[in-house]
Amino acid sequence: MKRLLLVSSSKAYGSGYLEHCEEEIRQLFAKSSRVLFVPYALFDRDAYAQQARQRFGEMGIELTSIHEAEDPVEAVRKAEGIFIGGGNTFRLLRELQGQGLIAPIGDRVEAGMPYLGTSAGSNVAGPTIKTTNDMPIVQPASFVALDLVPFQINPHYVDADPDSTHQGETRDQRLTEYLEENDTPVVAIREGAMVIVRDREVRLAGQAGGKLFRKDTGPVEIPPGQLIDGLGVVRE
Amino acid sequence: MKRLLLVSSSKAYGSGYLEHCEEEIRQLFAKSSRVLFVPYALFDRDAYAQQARQRFGEMGIELTSIHEAEDPVEAVRKAEGIFIGGGNTFRLLRELQGQGLIAPIGDRVEAGMPYLGTSAGSNVAGPTIKTTNDMPIVQPASFVALDLVPFQINPHYVDADPDSTHQGETRDQRLTEYLEENDTPVVAIREGAMVIVRDREVRLAGQAGGKLFRKDTGPVEIPPGQLIDGLGVVRE
Repeated sequence: MKRLLLVSSSKAYGSGYLEHCEEEIRQLFAKSSRVLFVPYALFDRDAYAQQARQRFGEMGIELTSIHEAEDPVEAVRKAEGIFIGGGNTFRLLRELQGQGLIAPIGDRVEAGMPYLGTSAGSNVAGPTIKTTNDMPIVQPASFVALDLVPFQINPHYVDADPDSTHQGETRDQRLTEYLEENDTPVVAIREGAMVIVRDREVRLAGQAGGKLFRKDTGPVEIPPGQLIDGLGVVRE
Repeated sequence: MKRLLLVSSSKAYGSGYLEHCEEEIRQLFAKSSRVLFVPYALFDRDAYAQQARQRFGEMGIELTSIHEAEDPVEAVRKAEGIFIGGGNTFRLLRELQGQGLIAPIGDRVEAGMPYLGTSAGSNVAGPTIKTTNDMPIVQPASFVALDLVPFQINPHYVDADPDSTHQGETRDQRLTEYLEENDTPVVAIREGAMVIVRDREVRLAGQAGGKLFRKDTGPVEIPPGQLIDGLGVVRE
């Protein structure tokens, strides 16, 4: 069974690193004694791997970091689970492409290897990174990502602030612009929310809820715990 | 003389479309009886051109839109001034590249054609679009932009809100990540601010001020009216 846990943000306001999603992470990796960590989204990979390793240690899960592996592709082939951490989505995708990891990760997830993503790590699970909030600080070979699910993720989703004086686009305006140019639906998840995928079953977990954006229809609120229908298999 | 006016946002809070920068626009185009408008950053080009044409009409300047020209490259060659409007920077750059306009616009600006950019139109005046805030809704051929000035622009600059509960990166964190990967300095301009370029003289205008971000040094506040030194000719 294909299993993914796509978390909006590794921290929710008022709780610690991976605290609000701990139960879901434990369930996802219940049968994985060793999980492979991908720290490519941040500049300081050593520090990032250390933080993640310590946190997973507290949950009784051994974590190895792909940036310490001699052969990253081989590390993916042997992994019992994978955790792609957040940071900058462009930097992350460029390195996944550069290391030739797109197809190997896709093959393993199709074969049942549990996948955990937070923030940028959730973004790259979609068909493209076209719904990231990140600054394009480096140029990946293409915006095409891991394509593990048939919908886009928009992490750190924020509702428009009616009192804002800022003239820049709201998140809803940005996602509407995305749908002017693309057909793939977008699951926007507030901080504290996450998406659980089990084969074709897609469910929203966590407390914060989210919104489903589809072409030619207005955004629809998704309450916590709800199964998300209608994601179909529309691809760009 | 090379002349550019790079405006953070076409509207500042509490004033109308191109109102806060009207004086600077009048000065820039004092000798241009016809200005070419580029509406590529928005989806509805007709509506966008109409809005800009009306506003320029109020200032006594005739505006023609490049999307109505039979030959966009020829339209650039004959233009007496150019105005690239805001919207989505990726959509804008992709179309500039697709229409073969990068070099023609660069040649004309080097030869003294006045250039006005707002928001995305200011972003594309830099060497790359790597400091845009926009969502990457379409993929341009490359992030390399018009390269009219030797620094990056970050429009709609916002200071971090100390009361925010949001876990996403602040603008300062994003620009710091940019400088982890790149050397080109960034002029970040708050809404209401603008950059005036006259050959090698770069000055901050408007009331809101900005910040200069450079590699290996902390950000430095730029007060309104100040000449910005030290932008050098560092290129990536």
